[in-house]
Amino acid sequence: MLIYDSDKRERETDLVIPSQFVTPAAIRRMRKDGGGLICTTVPARAWKLLGIPYLSDLFHEARDSHPLLAELIPNDIPYDTKSAFALTINHRKTFTGVTDRDRALTVSSFAGMVREAVESESGEEILRQTFGQLFRAPGHVTLLNASEGLLSKRSGHTEMATALVTLAGLIPSATICEMMGDDGKALRKSDAAEYARTNGLVFIEGAAIKSYWETRTGEKAMPDVRRAGVCANGR
Amino acid sequence: MLIYDSDKRERETDLVIPSQFVTPAAIRRMRKDGGGLICTTVPARAWKLLGIPYLSDLFHEARDSHPLLAELIPNDIPYDTKSAFALTINHRKTFTGVTDRDRALTVSSFAGMVREAVESESGEEILRQTFGQLFRAPGHVTLLNASEGLLSKRSGHTEMATALVTLAGLIPSATICEMMGDDGKALRKSDAAEYARTNGLVFIEGAAIKSYWETRTGEKAMPDVRRAGVCANGR
Repeated sequence: MLIYDSDKRERETDLVIPSQFVTPAAIRRMRKDGGGLICTTVPARAWKLLGIPYLSDLFHEARDSHPLLAELIPNDIPYDTKSAFALTINHRKTFTGVTDRDRALTVSSFAGMVREAVESESGEEILRQTFGQLFRAPGHVTLLNASEGLLSKRSGHTEMATALVTLAGLIPSATICEMMGDDGKALRKSDAAEYARTNGLVFIEGAAIKSYWETRTGEKAMPDVRRAGVCANGR
Repeated sequence: MLIYDSDKRERETDLVIPSQFVTPAAIRRMRKDGGGLICTTVPARAWKLLGIPYLSDLFHEARDSHPLLAELIPNDIPYDTKSAFALTINHRKTFTGVTDRDRALTVSSFAGMVREAVESESGEEILRQTFGQLFRAPGHVTLLNASEGLLSKRSGHTEMATALVTLAGLIPSATICEMMGDDGKALRKSDAAEYARTNGLVFIEGAAIKSYWETRTGEKAMPDVRRAGVCANGR
């Protein structure tokens, strides 16, 4: 599935696959036909129970011992107030962690971890220990923490992809990769739609996802706001 | 240039370009023909002066406030004791940060920052402020901190690529990307050598780099040691 966010936001199409179905072939398609970063989303219930921090929060908290981090504050992202970047992980049974097989193992096992976090009654400490038995950090798969409340709070690819797999009744984690064009920019919307047609994939726009999500959940989706200038970091 | 490390280490070939020469076309080649993570190396003098922390150190230091990080300790990397992963950055003038143009801007500007750090007499605080005026973190280009002493301390692609650009008299930062095969594994050494021939690129092995480095610097290079089992994290 391909998700284009909005003319008012990143103007970017991501390749999206439910994390539980990610195979080495899926990773290969993402790196060859997408070309961006291959990232896996984490629903709020899972990152809260597991204790997966946002990278920007970790950097913020470490600014006293590492003063450079105070200088690098991301207070001027053109289309949002905060990135979804969280930890990077490798499954402990990977070798380098970066091959298609290794990343597929990391992602599909992480989907199992998300299922355990959202379904099981295990306490947080047991969940964290299980996570630590299976994964190490840093690694080669970037986790993206989805906002609590999903599209009612943020309308990034992270939230849109997570909302769709959630509404589909799958494990609420998606693996996503931005599609690049050969002109140095993001792949044009029309070229992404053409890629979807040629490859038998669904191409869907953020507006349609939001509308469907509002119908299903009864909540109002966040409007897209291109930021006019630099403003304070939204944390 | 292509660097294959060693049959005794990752058994992996990286595409390598001096960071100062990175263009959008170079990023495109890396994501299309490489397929791994696109990372930029930082010589020890620069990461020390700028105060760029290792990601594994940040995670380690934050383990009290984020207990999950204590569980994810990377004490079982099969071929090394510590990964080179440091911060991820975007140039502040990028939009999403991930397009070929955006990543090329981030990398080539970062090369200028490395030059300033290794050549200038500016104090650390001025350097950090300049860095913060130009970049934000987290971002889409992963920095890799090269070990101090380079090949005398560690023989990763990070150190080998940094050693080569240093010995060539260029800004001592290289941008590297692992080459993937279509079989789910790293690209085979013979296929990487063939790619180099077809594309008019140099294919060089770790052993040759080490030997040249020993001749030029008079220091002994670190032997490759595949770790037999899990041992304590080398921090």
